[in-house]
Amino acid sequence: MSQNPTLYYAPGTCAQAVLIALHEAGAAFEAKRLNFAENEQRGAAYLAINPKGRVPALVTAQGVLSETPALLLYVAQTYPNAQLAPLNDPFQLAHMQEFNSFLASTVHVSHAHRPRASRWADDEAAQASMRAKVPHNMREAFAMIEQHYLGDKPWVMGDQYTVADGYLFTIASWLKSDSVDIAEFPRVAAHFERVKARPAVQKALAPA
Amino acid sequence: MSQNPTLYYAPGTCAQAVLIALHEAGAAFEAKRLNFAENEQRGAAYLAINPKGRVPALVTAQGVLSETPALLLYVAQTYPNAQLAPLNDPFQLAHMQEFNSFLASTVHVSHAHRPRASRWADDEAAQASMRAKVPHNMREAFAMIEQHYLGDKPWVMGDQYTVADGYLFTIASWLKSDSVDIAEFPRVAAHFERVKARPAVQKALAPA
Repeated sequence: MSQNPTLYYAPGTCAQAVLIALHEAGAAFEAKRLNFAENEQRGAAYLAINPKGRVPALVTAQGVLSETPALLLYVAQTYPNAQLAPLNDPFQLAHMQEFNSFLASTVHVSHAHRPRASRWADDEAAQASMRAKVPHNMREAFAMIEQHYLGDKPWVMGDQYTVADGYLFTIASWLKSDSVDIAEFPRVAAHFERVKARPAVQKALAPA
Repeated sequence: MSQNPTLYYAPGTCAQAVLIALHEAGAAFEAKRLNFAENEQRGAAYLAINPKGRVPALVTAQGVLSETPALLLYVAQTYPNAQLAPLNDPFQLAHMQEFNSFLASTVHVSHAHRPRASRWADDEAAQASMRAKVPHNMREAFAMIEQHYLGDKPWVMGDQYTVADGYLFTIASWLKSDSVDIAEFPRVAAHFERVKARPAVQKALAPA
């Protein structure tokens, strides 16, 4: 049995951020694509791996890990030579984790109220009302990213590319489906193209 | 000017988890309580510190940090002698971050649909519909904590108390207001009493 970690993911989900990180790290790993159209993430086989029924999940020799910000930190720490996080500066590392946590707890959640509104209300009228507010909330979140987090340096953390960049790229790719034009946020738009051009990101985006 | 970090918090919010962590660390710090009843977290003075207008925020000599999971990791790393996280084992650290990220992105968000429903829909009927589903979602989240995360050991990470324990304690204290009886989850209930009994937690809960 391989000791290589196995990432369970689906294209276009937040798990793509972990797939990008593993490619950036030059890691030896397996990638298993779940069929969301057939709800494979809710099937018994996958629930035995991740009882939350969501991606990403990373099966390692020590056990299974989930939750994108945790996995991104894990990849950065496990492949330190790739320098995917400011591992030796607790303040800078906390700043990166702050950004990733904001993406997970606020930005991803804002987006999820469109495709996953049924998580938070059962009736269709309420779900429609939530979906209607998604563009507003995504604009507010990306205004914060544009003005507070991105500066004139190329990457989220400044001059150093980190796992936060692939994560922002992944979530920014949802803006179009949320009826928000990325061009409203020039720094985000430039960052998006910068990340997309990286070889590791092209590998992650290639059809499996 | 003091070089001690300053925590901006409000009682009963998730910032309490950071307050507990700082007390557990034996840190020298200032605590500034915001008056949520007067919406002080949305006032110009605080927005200059944390433009997100939320707590927690920690002002350090290097800059301001926010987002609870990031701050908890920062406290654990900055006061390593307190052993508030498995800092030397990337898998175990990722497991702790996974748990904290689940609390932030799923459990806190599930709860927030009761007091903060207006974030995600403008009309009152939709907000009422969201509020109605909160007990269901909190039960589902705490069932995951009870069955998947808590075992027969005293703490989230097993035998070692970590920042994750004060965070779970803080969020579990919201169950009552969400109309969920903590006694439905025996491990969570026992954990709650275990955390509450700690001297550092009693300090954090004492009126400012």
